[in-house]
Amino acid sequence: MIQEHVLPDYADICAAHNRLGGHVVRTPLLRCDALDSLVKRPVFVKAENLQKTGSFKYRGASNRIKLLDQVQKKNGVVAYSSGNHAQGIAAAAAEAGVPAVIVMPNDVPSVKSDGVLARGAKIVGYDRLRENREEIGARIAQERGAVLIPPYDDAMVMAGQGTVGIECAEQFIEQGISPEALIVNAGGGGLTAGIALAWAEHCPNAAIYTAEPEGFDDHKRSFEAGRRLQNVALGGSICDALLTPEPGLLTFEINRHLVRAGLSADDEAVFEAMRFAFLHLKIVLEPGGAMALAIAMLGHVPGDGPLCVLATGGNVDPALFTRVLKG
Amino acid sequence: MIQEHVLPDYADICAAHNRLGGHVVRTPLLRCDALDSLVKRPVFVKAENLQKTGSFKYRGASNRIKLLDQVQKKNGVVAYSSGNHAQGIAAAAAEAGVPAVIVMPNDVPSVKSDGVLARGAKIVGYDRLRENREEIGARIAQERGAVLIPPYDDAMVMAGQGTVGIECAEQFIEQGISPEALIVNAGGGGLTAGIALAWAEHCPNAAIYTAEPEGFDDHKRSFEAGRRLQNVALGGSICDALLTPEPGLLTFEINRHLVRAGLSADDEAVFEAMRFAFLHLKIVLEPGGAMALAIAMLGHVPGDGPLCVLATGGNVDPALFTRVLKG
Repeated sequence: MIQEHVLPDYADICAAHNRLGGHVVRTPLLRCDALDSLVKRPVFVKAENLQKTGSFKYRGASNRIKLLDQVQKKNGVVAYSSGNHAQGIAAAAAEAGVPAVIVMPNDVPSVKSDGVLARGAKIVGYDRLRENREEIGARIAQERGAVLIPPYDDAMVMAGQGTVGIECAEQFIEQGISPEALIVNAGGGGLTAGIALAWAEHCPNAAIYTAEPEGFDDHKRSFEAGRRLQNVALGGSICDALLTPEPGLLTFEINRHLVRAGLSADDEAVFEAMRFAFLHLKIVLEPGGAMALAIAMLGHVPGDGPLCVLATGGNVDPALFTRVLKG
Repeated sequence: MIQEHVLPDYADICAAHNRLGGHVVRTPLLRCDALDSLVKRPVFVKAENLQKTGSFKYRGASNRIKLLDQVQKKNGVVAYSSGNHAQGIAAAAAEAGVPAVIVMPNDVPSVKSDGVLARGAKIVGYDRLRENREEIGARIAQERGAVLIPPYDDAMVMAGQGTVGIECAEQFIEQGISPEALIVNAGGGGLTAGIALAWAEHCPNAAIYTAEPEGFDDHKRSFEAGRRLQNVALGGSICDALLTPEPGLLTFEINRHLVRAGLSADDEAVFEAMRFAFLHLKIVLEPGGAMALAIAMLGHVPGDGPLCVLATGGNVDPALFTRVLKG
């Protein structure tokens, strides 16, 4: 079945939601009067940094791995990742008893490589500026007869990430609130695509925005151009989780139709958001996990109705977080 | 009706649960493979540090304030608190348009006094070692014709805190899991009493334990003695939220029957738990909010079945948290 899919649809997300039920943390929609006052609208923070492995990536990884057949489970999986997808794959693979090899950049924060190693996966390093992780991943997959699980350009990975969208829509319905807008951090765009497909059914009137670092706003520029554009730089922002070179081929096909626009902010705003999240929301966010909150705090999301902010990851080194605390 | 109550019962907690529905954050039951491995049992962390105002205290405060009549709402409320009850009262009072005066110790972390002031309440300071906060609170209440809301020895405050117990039991039921034990931080014992009443209905086979700082284990010693015993010291632990002089009169009447035993750990274990929560759970805990987790991490909670750990507060100053991050 899975081979027939190119793009996921709403049914795939519902199936993933049922498949993952009880295995994922139902992360909260956080409220905070200081945030409402600052932004001058009701803000709801969907805290996916509290998901297993510290990011939403566990959802997509787990959905994909649960769909492997017995031979595939024996040969294992390979993934390339700036960090959080790696941990999601390592954890989901360990739970399923599936061997995993992760291709990770050499400059990834140690909290991320440690998490992968602790879950029993093997790491193969590469140079973010000189080598192509897709090629390395494909070569290892071929050598081992393993299944390569891309971080976003995969229908079942996107469907897994989309369960955030269903869950979050359910939480709004329980509270009798209709969100006016949602802003979500975008690296490859898989989470955005999954949520956008879910919200097209559940919250069709809500405007969806992507959040990216200034200078790495490939989604924003691609939406404006109507075609995929690359980032010029490959490194240099503090938001390591969002530094993909361009929107995914598959994710962009979904997002170009369902996303209203791209928004961005600089590293300083991200530090402010991380500090605010510590002081007021009591959650730990990594830089790439705090971008949507940073943009919301700047008041850059159009409208004044209920706003949903996706907080997507919390895997940050203590040394960097100490800098955030100094303010 | 409320005047007729001395001790709350399960019906009061159900009423509070319905009254507060949609106004409180449904905080998550967090999972973490590193924690399960460490403790060698399935651990579920109920993260009430993510509640509005950064602690569970908002629940009890909000429940009590919603029950004020119109005259009482006009004259306002008074509360004495080591900090988190103060913020809960300030936030709930502000939402209800009720004036609030808070009696707080002079040595309270500034993150706690700032939170009260930002919510529009007035602070009256006192010396924790020389003055009696109950007397100061009673005097102010009399002068203003205001309602004094104690932090724990109040049936409707306890009923509000007990909504954590119902919510958390519902979350276990949704996952088809029967918890074997629960450990909860105890200052005055109001949260413990509320949860114990709820779990007597929902999870009657689970053993409930209190968590306290070593040297401030008044609940533990009182359970063993069968009567309320005081702590010798009034200050000196890092867990400022748990330094009440003795168990509450009303809370102890409930807890003596429903709590299995008291457990304790030292400040060093608390620092370890705060660091673990940062690294693996991605939540911010204050020292008093991390005591139950610290004891769980030491393996001191009897049994090997599913364990529920209450994380109760996250209001910690950045300077102290920086020390935690240094490890």
